[in-house]
Amino acid sequence: MTAIYLDRLDRVRAAMSEQGVDALLLSVGHDLPYLTGYEAMPLERLTMLVVPRDGDATMLIPRLEAPRVEAQPGVFELQPWDETDDPTALAAALLPGASTIAVGDQMWARFLVELLPHLPGAAYRRAVDVVGPMRMVKDQAEIDALAAAGAAVDRIAAELHAGEIALVGRTEAEVSAELSRRIIAEGHQKVNFAIVAAGENAASPHHHAGSRVIRENEIVLCDFGGTMNGYCSDITRCVFTGDVAPDVAEAYAVLHEAQAAAVAAATVGTPCQDVDRAARRVIADAGYGQYFVHRTGHGIGLEEHEDPYIVEGNATPLEAGHAFSIEPGIYVPGTWGMRLEDIVVAGTDGPIAMNTVDHGLHAVDA
Amino acid sequence: MTAIYLDRLDRVRAAMSEQGVDALLLSVGHDLPYLTGYEAMPLERLTMLVVPRDGDATMLIPRLEAPRVEAQPGVFELQPWDETDDPTALAAALLPGASTIAVGDQMWARFLVELLPHLPGAAYRRAVDVVGPMRMVKDQAEIDALAAAGAAVDRIAAELHAGEIALVGRTEAEVSAELSRRIIAEGHQKVNFAIVAAGENAASPHHHAGSRVIRENEIVLCDFGGTMNGYCSDITRCVFTGDVAPDVAEAYAVLHEAQAAAVAAATVGTPCQDVDRAARRVIADAGYGQYFVHRTGHGIGLEEHEDPYIVEGNATPLEAGHAFSIEPGIYVPGTWGMRLEDIVVAGTDGPIAMNTVDHGLHAVDA
Repeated sequence: MTAIYLDRLDRVRAAMSEQGVDALLLSVGHDLPYLTGYEAMPLERLTMLVVPRDGDATMLIPRLEAPRVEAQPGVFELQPWDETDDPTALAAALLPGASTIAVGDQMWARFLVELLPHLPGAAYRRAVDVVGPMRMVKDQAEIDALAAAGAAVDRIAAELHAGEIALVGRTEAEVSAELSRRIIAEGHQKVNFAIVAAGENAASPHHHAGSRVIRENEIVLCDFGGTMNGYCSDITRCVFTGDVAPDVAEAYAVLHEAQAAAVAAATVGTPCQDVDRAARRVIADAGYGQYFVHRTGHGIGLEEHEDPYIVEGNATPLEAGHAFSIEPGIYVPGTWGMRLEDIVVAGTDGPIAMNTVDHGLHAVDA
Repeated sequence: MTAIYLDRLDRVRAAMSEQGVDALLLSVGHDLPYLTGYEAMPLERLTMLVVPRDGDATMLIPRLEAPRVEAQPGVFELQPWDETDDPTALAAALLPGASTIAVGDQMWARFLVELLPHLPGAAYRRAVDVVGPMRMVKDQAEIDALAAAGAAVDRIAAELHAGEIALVGRTEAEVSAELSRRIIAEGHQKVNFAIVAAGENAASPHHHAGSRVIRENEIVLCDFGGTMNGYCSDITRCVFTGDVAPDVAEAYAVLHEAQAAAVAAATVGTPCQDVDRAARRVIADAGYGQYFVHRTGHGIGLEEHEDPYIVEGNATPLEAGHAFSIEPGIYVPGTWGMRLEDIVVAGTDGPIAMNTVDHGLHAVDA
């Protein structure tokens, strides 16, 4: 892997030169493992990779965590700090003369607050401008990893469709826990989320699965995913606990068409916002426009949500290797909600689906 | 709960006045639920509570997450933002004239990077200076919650001591997964960590449980905890898979004495660093000083690690209601490591142990 990290670091330095960035600071988040193989612990002790454009990279690490770090010769020097050191001052000392500094998105704001007075006059940028374009374009090994994770959640969705996951009489939280167990059983190392939302709760797109008991004759929205060998899965399927109510069936047909239209639109060279528009147009034309309250999708890879975002205002053209979700939804407050989601990779021969399980609204036995 | 949040917000505003803070910005992290009951999703869409010292508080929330938020009349106004809005600009618009701004530790640095150009000349502080002193002092309900979580992990530690958790022949990762299952089964809603480190791996204090198979006649360090009804547990116990080796037994007797000395020193009015020194002195006097490479402890409550830190350089005197870990360790690189940890609350009648399970190094059947 060291050769891969060295190559990525070279490309990062080229992007820094092009963009006039003097130094890159990475901590919690996925840019750090992308460049070094090491993931920072999300704790109050600072882990930070300092990459000067023209000097050697240094990883500041709490001494007690130094044994966790695998050496990558030539990629970075390890600089352990002790409990009574001030790690932010140590970071500032590695940044002499830096005036434009790019910072990882998920670094704790605390460390930037502490750094500001050390470097008066410096300007700050998001590191995603430097590392994001590289991370967006997945190579074949990354696409294979996304496909493997996608196939795993497809198997769970098929079980859901087949009525093998009991719903009626159980709470959303119980079904969420069962989905989580199956995510691990199917080969993920980590569960990232397992939204289960029944009936009117499905109108809350990021509903927290709770004590609501699932009843007969209602929609159940399941949106779940995990991390397998570093790469994420993410799928949404809905089922109906009984014969599908006519108003729900009618809306679902629109949703299904909208999702397929957006997938078909996701070709190389198409601006991201045009993919969003493709889904939105179908839903708006059918009169449900006000009920589609979020963007159509997000990039996916090492993180569940990363660039590119499939949203109005993002004119970035899709490139081969871009991976993202296509997940339009229709949410009628207080009544019901529905979403249909696949992961798709833009390919030179057209969109490649990472999820292929049936897209219909299945009636499951109560 | 609304009354509790209103009271806390009053006290926060008083602290802001005292410290000359014009506005408080809270996002991901535990200050936000402490003041509002709502926990921000750790995602790229900004959730932010803006608390001007002299005006009403506003919670910026992605529109699709607005249904998750429980209204708290008088505590904050909800301001949902749409997918094509710029939430950082909306936040800046809520901060007219603010020149000293306190920021939550765990907010994503991205949002501070985006905010900086909107407010040229503003100075930034850590919100922990404002909210931390309040959160540090636990009331009786909070202490009861810590005690309940502590009793739950004590039961698991007792099972470990009794040899009811198989070790030899299993990987660290398998034992970690079993501890995680038991943490949930004992009533926690969430597993925060389950370190299992065998033999030489135990010399890495934050070891990641992996594929190393546990053998006979070695030490196994288990450090685990979760969140129960909002409050955290955290305990470390070691066991030995066979008759305890003499060098390990000798060191463990020192560790045991050091841990007890620090607990005894944790009385109201004692500076935090004196508690650290109490443990460190015992270990240094026995000749193991170079092997105790971390602070003695950390505060605990809504978060696993929070103020007060039991570390050299922290002269803060303990107050009644402060809750923290006491966890000295001895780590001989490449050979073995050991740590002994309880959660303790400073009380007017002396230290109150949240963990009371046996402190000895138990030999467990291979």
